[in-house]
Amino acid sequence: MSKARQGNYFEDFRLGQVIAHATPRTVTAGDVALYTALYGPRFAVQSSDAFAKASGYAAAPIDDLLVFHIVFGKTVPDISLNAVANLGYAECRFLKPVFPGDTLSSTSEVIGLKENSNKQSGVVYVRTTGRDQTGAPVLDYVRWVMVKKRDEAAVAPAPHVPTLKAALEPADLGGALPPLTLDGYDTALSGNPARWDDYEIGEKIDHLDAMTLEEAEHQLATRLYQNTAKVHFNLHEQAQGRFKRRLIYGGHIISLARALSFNGLENAFHVAAINAGRHVSPAFAGDTVYAWSEVLDKQPLPGRDDAGALRLRLIAAKDKPCTSFPYKAGEQYDPAVLLDLDYWAVLPR
Amino acid sequence: MSKARQGNYFEDFRLGQVIAHATPRTVTAGDVALYTALYGPRFAVQSSDAFAKASGYAAAPIDDLLVFHIVFGKTVPDISLNAVANLGYAECRFLKPVFPGDTLSSTSEVIGLKENSNKQSGVVYVRTTGRDQTGAPVLDYVRWVMVKKRDEAAVAPAPHVPTLKAALEPADLGGALPPLTLDGYDTALSGNPARWDDYEIGEKIDHLDAMTLEEAEHQLATRLYQNTAKVHFNLHEQAQGRFKRRLIYGGHIISLARALSFNGLENAFHVAAINAGRHVSPAFAGDTVYAWSEVLDKQPLPGRDDAGALRLRLIAAKDKPCTSFPYKAGEQYDPAVLLDLDYWAVLPR
Amino acid sequence: MSKARQGNYFEDFRLGQVIAHATPRTVTAGDVALYTALYGPRFAVQSSDAFAKASGYAAAPIDDLLVFHIVFGKTVPDISLNAVANLGYAECRFLKPVFPGDTLSSTSEVIGLKENSNKQSGVVYVRTTGRDQTGAPVLDYVRWVMVKKRDEAAVAPAPHVPTLKAALEPADLGGALPPLTLDGYDTALSGNPARWDDYEIGEKIDHLDAMTLEEAEHQLATRLYQNTAKVHFNLHEQAQGRFKRRLIYGGHIISLARALSFNGLENAFHVAAINAGRHVSPAFAGDTVYAWSEVLDKQPLPGRDDAGALRLRLIAAKDKPCTSFPYKAGEQYDPAVLLDLDYWAVLPR
Repeated sequence: MSKARQGNYFEDFRLGQVIAHATPRTVTAGDVALYTALYGPRFAVQSSDAFAKASGYAAAPIDDLLVFHIVFGKTVPDISLNAVANLGYAECRFLKPVFPGDTLSSTSEVIGLKENSNKQSGVVYVRTTGRDQTGAPVLDYVRWVMVKKRDEAAVAPAPHVPTLKAALEPADLGGALPPLTLDGYDTALSGNPARWDDYEIGEKIDHLDAMTLEEAEHQLATRLYQNTAKVHFNLHEQAQGRFKRRLIYGGHIISLARALSFNGLENAFHVAAINAGRHVSPAFAGDTVYAWSEVLDKQPLPGRDDAGALRLRLIAAKDKPCTSFPYKAGEQYDPAVLLDLDYWAVLPR
Repeated sequence: MSKARQGNYFEDFRLGQVIAHATPRTVTAGDVALYTALYGPRFAVQSSDAFAKASGYAAAPIDDLLVFHIVFGKTVPDISLNAVANLGYAECRFLKPVFPGDTLSSTSEVIGLKENSNKQSGVVYVRTTGRDQTGAPVLDYVRWVMVKKRDEAAVAPAPHVPTLKAALEPADLGGALPPLTLDGYDTALSGNPARWDDYEIGEKIDHLDAMTLEEAEHQLATRLYQNTAKVHFNLHEQAQGRFKRRLIYGGHIISLARALSFNGLENAFHVAAINAGRHVSPAFAGDTVYAWSEVLDKQPLPGRDDAGALRLRLIAAKDKPCTSFPYKAGEQYDPAVLLDLDYWAVLPR
Repeated sequence: MSKARQGNYFEDFRLGQVIAHATPRTVTAGDVALYTALYGPRFAVQSSDAFAKASGYAAAPIDDLLVFHIVFGKTVPDISLNAVANLGYAECRFLKPVFPGDTLSSTSEVIGLKENSNKQSGVVYVRTTGRDQTGAPVLDYVRWVMVKKRDEAAVAPAPHVPTLKAALEPADLGGALPPLTLDGYDTALSGNPARWDDYEIGEKIDHLDAMTLEEAEHQLATRLYQNTAKVHFNLHEQAQGRFKRRLIYGGHIISLARALSFNGLENAFHVAAINAGRHVSPAFAGDTVYAWSEVLDKQPLPGRDDAGALRLRLIAAKDKPCTSFPYKAGEQYDPAVLLDLDYWAVLPR
């Protein structure tokens, strides 16, 4: 049998199984520069060592979503190489800040399995944990994907679907946030005087800016994360498929929308948790991505008065300015919507 | 009112006003690698720590134009988001070398205002200063842009146009140049034996090489500089506009032409000052950029005998080899010319 | 005469001549991140400082092929700017690991010259050595190129063709490999339990994955290596030529195929030597690159029991999956083949 790995099929997974993923990865200032070039983020804490130190960090931390993508990328060869669809995320918590020089690795535990009635595939639920070189968790999240069966006749285990929180709670947030030095957090440099207290539930923000997607850019990003999903890279194969084009990694759209959201959320520098994420439609090179946000909830962080959390809906829309906040008509998404992300951001008070 | 910023309009500026720009930015080896990948510069001092140390630097300094772009990028959201046109640069001096790990931030002082006779816009003159984490200036320059009025009826202040030097003088140069160790400056490694003394006023150099522009490349560059000008990124909007395409950041052409100019100016490793810069025509993806230089002046640096300055005209031309040095016919530029840059470079003696 | 260099012609080379190439280059974490983004390599030793240290390295070493490209790039302006064709490589040995912060420079000795019978060109053989900042060799290799004559009437020296090894021998390998700490080399993290002992001569591996080439990507790569060959960058000129398009640097295909080969060769983390390399056909943007490998030979490393070497044929094919291992029919290559590389890889035992 060839030594090249074809990925796992539905019947290869066992409830409770723990998978250690290749390849550990040291994150560096080089990754930070590329992330800046790919999306243009401008949050001051992640952009400036001097600003980060004045605000209570040891140095500028790695952008939370870059950490997410690197931890996620490692899981692809084991979990989703034979996936039909990436169905959802939940309970994603950022637990410890990551700095240049830290080495990240990932493990996943299978926490749910449910065969589809057609016997051709099934849903696999995993809880993935990213750890640094000391073994300390920096991130964990649940993800579920529909995975093909290798053999339709293979007998599936009894179905088990885990119970997941619709949203994380304030007590789940802030693990990756050091005590802030509010005197040192200069809002002239961060770009907006509006702190946590200045936002209101129900507030909507059109982020105004937009970016057009390029093949070279999403490929560079996805390889930077060592994510090997074939649909992002292989035009020869994709040209025969449903979309005739390379599909862009969903995380690329998340990072782009998050960078665009700087305009109006300048002090929401830390993603503390992701409650849910849905890639409503696929994105392709040539699409122009706009974004808007809505404040869904607002909570202090338990036991601390330096920062508070905003629960935000971040919508990315394709080829459509967000002046009218495109979202849903009833159950149906506006056809322009690419991404519907529900997350907790932390802001200084 | 939305917290997203729409940028300043002409009537928002006041003479003498000082604007602190977001976002401070730590420059790293990651930025240096990307800059190399984007333009291919080969000046030995900036490329090699070993060469830089042997020549009198503490380490390889950051390319002067990368410093310029980062300082410039920060000013865009405050100064030129509503600009109709970027009219000019003057008196740009490099004052202190920047090294990986330094954090740059920018402030601008409004030094001139002049409403246009049509009352729809006006010219704003700013002197922008880039500073490192110690507060020391590393760069300053004057820039003037034509900015829209939000409200035509808004009353404009009395016009004030600053007096600007046509060119900086030798006494203005060399602040960012440490004393050179000429024995350690190895011209076999730098690529050309020609030092300052070997160039003559009136000498023209066709740089021979050329590069074709790509959308992904200029977008990566412009985001790396955290420059948010919409015309560079938003095809959906630009497709409705005059050019039907994304406009390339003018600084991208400056950096590309400067990198091409290595062939024939191998020892002109330091940009000490920019006297004037004109983006003669817009550049687009698909254009192939050629470059040539002319020595306009040649001056020793006052009080030092390690280095001298050449005043150079650097011309970038589109889809046209520079064997015949395309420039002007009378007042009219050759239609191939993209850039006309007048700067002082420093070379070892 | 213009100071811009036009490169050497056949009659400019002398047997025994040693050429010191510009520009020395400090390799950094920024280069590593870009290399990851360009090709997506996942070998654990190069990806993770923690893994490298546990395995016997001082830190994660720079990918061998990145070292090769940087050393090679410097030779282009002196050796191959006027080349008609790049004919071959031989005797490429990696001699010392390179780490971020090391500065690389290159020299070449002319070891062979043979004028073509048409008197219009000749073959130049050079042995190029890359050295670090201490002067220690990190890499050497022989390359031969067909170079134009400036003047057909120029008298050529007596022909001299060096004798080159068809393949390096086990005694030539391992100079860049520190003693491995096998207990610390964790195959769960490296991605495959198969070590040196598990491979057999004649074994073929289809690497399954594939990547589509983009103009922006190969340009970024080739500039990162400070390689100035015009055919890779100048569409304006190439559009008049035989291929109507920019030619992709052959080394870009080597690095891409090597990164694809991770799937099935996860522990073959070190390229110890390149025996021969042939760019069978040119590659262009839009091509999708697949790859497969065959084990040609298997040898222990003399005097050490921590690692062994596999001699591998690495084939890159265009727009054709490698399930049927496309190679040759008789002497004729399958038209899909882009690259035929013969190299020694080292794996832990």
